[in-house]
Amino acid sequence: MWLSIETPEHMIDAIQNLSIRGAPLLGLAGIYGLYVSAKCSTTFSQFLVYSQKIRNARPTAVNLSKMVDRILERYTSITDLGILQDLLLREAFHYEKELEEESNLISTFGATLIETNDSILTHCNTGSLATLGLGTALGVIKQSYFQGKNISVFFTETRPLLQGARLTSYELWKSEIPATMIIESSVGFVMQNKLVNKVIVGADRIAVNGDTANKIGTYMIAVLAKENKIPFYIAAPCSTFDKKIQSGKDIMIEYRSGNELSPMFEENQQNIINPAFDITPIEFISGFITEKGILKQPDL
Amino acid sequence: MWLSIETPEHMIDAIQNLSIRGAPLLGLAGIYGLYVSAKCSTTFSQFLVYSQKIRNARPTAVNLSKMVDRILERYTSITDLGILQDLLLREAFHYEKELEEESNLISTFGATLIETNDSILTHCNTGSLATLGLGTALGVIKQSYFQGKNISVFFTETRPLLQGARLTSYELWKSEIPATMIIESSVGFVMQNKLVNKVIVGADRIAVNGDTANKIGTYMIAVLAKENKIPFYIAAPCSTFDKKIQSGKDIMIEYRSGNELSPMFEENQQNIINPAFDITPIEFISGFITEKGILKQPDL
Repeated sequence: MWLSIETPEHMIDAIQNLSIRGAPLLGLAGIYGLYVSAKCSTTFSQFLVYSQKIRNARPTAVNLSKMVDRILERYTSITDLGILQDLLLREAFHYEKELEEESNLISTFGATLIETNDSILTHCNTGSLATLGLGTALGVIKQSYFQGKNISVFFTETRPLLQGARLTSYELWKSEIPATMIIESSVGFVMQNKLVNKVIVGADRIAVNGDTANKIGTYMIAVLAKENKIPFYIAAPCSTFDKKIQSGKDIMIEYRSGNELSPMFEENQQNIINPAFDITPIEFISGFITEKGILKQPDL
Repeated sequence: MWLSIETPEHMIDAIQNLSIRGAPLLGLAGIYGLYVSAKCSTTFSQFLVYSQKIRNARPTAVNLSKMVDRILERYTSITDLGILQDLLLREAFHYEKELEEESNLISTFGATLIETNDSILTHCNTGSLATLGLGTALGVIKQSYFQGKNISVFFTETRPLLQGARLTSYELWKSEIPATMIIESSVGFVMQNKLVNKVIVGADRIAVNGDTANKIGTYMIAVLAKENKIPFYIAAPCSTFDKKIQSGKDIMIEYRSGNELSPMFEENQQNIINPAFDITPIEFISGFITEKGILKQPDL
């Protein structure tokens, strides 16, 4: 399904309802969001109001706000909306190429960590549907497979919105990579029974000390990996590192509607809390796979 | 909804599709299973064939096979199917009382561990819908609340079959106990953020060394509890201890159909593995709450 986005309101909606998701892709959505904002504005100040709404559409993945800030700063002297549109479109095309190269470099660097007969666990979706090119964590898996390594993959269904069951499942199937889906509750089971020997996941924001925000459940997987002596890697572009955030406790976590869980049980009127992300402290992370290479600690 | 079971085939089906579930209740289902087997048999040897099918309907919860074995051994000399029916019905009524007392004792002993302002995490369903009386782990929670302790409760939705969202949610709502539902992926998050300070769950089989089989995800919760220095208790009747099993690695784990997860994604043709239980090693367990008191190590 293709989504045609013509207005800033539609872009914000697409970001908030996760039609567009994945940290790297949210950066690109930021630029296109500015483009449709310029297109739909009659005054420069209206454009600025839209820009801030786009910037703040989702709080946890740094790529969105960082990109909007960077672009606005770059063209601070341009107030002509027509010229701005041309510049923004050019930025978007340029960034698409960058994203694709970035994710392919991450995939290639990451693949050096993967050996034949490895069985890799991943969580959520970090493939072509979350960035461009091969992906981040899923890109590493694909690249390893394309290099001829005999690997197997376990992926979580990823509650509540099933990004694993819907998106990762699709990408692995398209790439013809042998894979097995599990519920998140089985992560401990597959580790305990030595069905996986490596974990690779993505990231939404990485603090200066290396603490990492990613899809809810990542912390749980990291703790289980450490307990079972399984290396746990984060694959993410350098743009995911946030120099303004010292440690994980300063990362703002987005809470989403409880309706994402089990709308059919609403009549029982139970509270639901539905944080979209959690923080994995640096001591659980074996390394970061970036487009510049593999870092054992974030070297900022 | 009430289910009227008249044949051994129907009882086996009800056990396998989880219409009847919960380790203590499976013991009772074993006796009633023998009763309908006796009722539907024309010969004693036919009764014995049915008995073994009932006994093996589900492999992990010890209560079912143990109860069938115990009853068959007790009446080994009775081959008259009419007399057997009477005796079995009497056994069933007797065991119903026993189950109820047992779960109420567990609830009362367990409540001594709970203080006002505690926030308790539980998993799956271990209430009146899994046993009779108040329940096991959920019974402890209810009893503490009925004693006037100001507690709060977090419970998991419990993938794949949502026993938390369907059953525990209903029981807590009926008892008017303030409770919050989370996905299993949020267990680490709520511990990390100090939203819970105790964990109580049930058990399906406990080995001689204390290793415990329970609903898939329990091991994961126990590892996270230890990492976050949160006490982790098992509430279960003594009948859940299996003297024939030395340690967790000897407990047979039931694998269920992948269709329980996401039948709508079948077209992607991914494998699914769906273990129904996992094993929590004794080192993660703070204590066992039984009808005979609280054991810090299983004293068999």
